[in-house]
Amino acid sequence: MRLRNKKWAQPWLEEHADLVINQQKATDLKGDWHSVFPVNQPIQIEIGTGKGQFIIGMAQKYPEINFIGMEIQEAAVAVAGRKADEFPEELPNLKFIYGDGAGVDTYFEQGEVSKIFLNFSDPWPKTRHESRRLTYKSFLEGYKAILPEGGELEFKTDNRGLFEYSLYSFNQFGISFVPDGISLNLHDDEEKMIDNVETEYEHKFSEQGFPIYKFVGKFN
Amino acid sequence: MRLRNKKWAQPWLEEHADLVINQQKATDLKGDWHSVFPVNQPIQIEIGTGKGQFIIGMAQKYPEINFIGMEIQEAAVAVAGRKADEFPEELPNLKFIYGDGAGVDTYFEQGEVSKIFLNFSDPWPKTRHESRRLTYKSFLEGYKAILPEGGELEFKTDNRGLFEYSLYSFNQFGISFVPDGISLNLHDDEEKMIDNVETEYEHKFSEQGFPIYKFVGKFN
Repeated sequence: MRLRNKKWAQPWLEEHADLVINQQKATDLKGDWHSVFPVNQPIQIEIGTGKGQFIIGMAQKYPEINFIGMEIQEAAVAVAGRKADEFPEELPNLKFIYGDGAGVDTYFEQGEVSKIFLNFSDPWPKTRHESRRLTYKSFLEGYKAILPEGGELEFKTDNRGLFEYSLYSFNQFGISFVPDGISLNLHDDEEKMIDNVETEYEHKFSEQGFPIYKFVGKFN
Repeated sequence: MRLRNKKWAQPWLEEHADLVINQQKATDLKGDWHSVFPVNQPIQIEIGTGKGQFIIGMAQKYPEINFIGMEIQEAAVAVAGRKADEFPEELPNLKFIYGDGAGVDTYFEQGEVSKIFLNFSDPWPKTRHESRRLTYKSFLEGYKAILPEGGELEFKTDNRGLFEYSLYSFNQFGISFVPDGISLNLHDDEEKMIDNVETEYEHKFSEQGFPIYKFVGKFN
C-alpha cells in the first residue's frame, strides 16, 4: 500500500540520518555495518519494512540481534523511523535503510546478513509484473549474494497468489525448504505462533479471518 | 477412511478379476500393461483410488488415456470396481489394481506410466507415521522409478498438515514445481477448475467451505 506523502517526512529523515540511513551512506557501509551498532552481533534485515511494526517488535524481542528495516517509500520509512525513535524503550539494535530491495548486494557483503524477512510484500498480481515481486529470481539472487551458506529467508503474506508463485520460485531457485517451514494458516498453528511477531497487515487480515501463509527456507 | 468390510466384495472381485487385477497378476503384467487395454495409449494411475469417483470421471473424460486405479482396501476397491462395471457408459480404458502404493515399481516398468495422481491420501498426522504418508521420500522413489523423465505427479488434499509436509518432501526430493502448479484454494480458482475432476472427499469438503490444495510437479 502506498502511503500519502507526508510533508514532515523529508526534514525528519534529514534530522535522523543516523537512524534512517540513505542509499549513498548504505552503499558506503558495505562490509562495515557492525560500525553503526553498539554491539557486534548478527544482522537480520526486513525488505519492505513498511511502517515498521514487525522490525520494531523483533528488535525489542531479540536484543542479541541487530536489525535493519529497508523501505523504498519515503513516507513509510519516515513513519517507521519515527515510531522507533519515539518507542518507550531504547532500541540500539535497530536501523533503517531508505532504499530499494533490488539493491541489497550493493549495501551488504556476502555473509554480512544472517537472515532475511519478507512480510506482506506487494503481490504484483499481473503476469507482466512478475519481475517486480520480491520473490522473483533476480531478487533471490540478491538475497543469496548477501547471506552465508545456509542463510535463511522467512516470508509471510496473506496473498494466496503471491504465496503460490513464491513457492514455485523458491523451488526453481534451489532454495531448500526446511522441515515444518511452511504454514498455510499460521494463526491456526499454535506452535508456530509462540514466537510470531505480527506486522500491521497481518494483524488486520488475520482478525478478518483470512489465512496467513508463512515460509522458511535456506539458501545453499 | 476405512470402509466396513463387505461380504459381497471377495466373491465379486474373484468374478471380475479382469477389471480389478490382483497383486500377483499385476506383478506379472510389469512391462506389458498395454495388453489389458483395447487401445495402446498412455497410462496414468491413481494411487489410493478409494471408491473410484475420480478415476472413473477421468476415464470418461479422457478416452485417449488408459487409467489404472490402485487401492489397498478390499471393500473400497470392490465398490470402485462395481461402480465402473455398472457405469452407464463402457469404460474400456479403465482398470484397477487391488494392491499397495508402496509396490508401484513391482507392477510397472520405468516410463510405463506417464502420470501419477494422489488424491486425499491418508494424512498420517503423527510424526512417527511420517513414512506411511504417500508423499514420503520412499514412495516418491517408487513413483520416480515408473515415470519417464519429466513425468508428472498431481496431488490434491483438504488436509493442511499433509500438504505443508508434502511441499517440503517434494522440494527435498528434487521434484520440479511447475509454473501455476500450486493452488491453495482450488475451488476459488476459476481457471484451474475448468478441467477439475472431483473426488468424493473433495466434493464434500469443498461444499463445507474448506480449501482444497493442489500440487503439480515433475520428476527430472
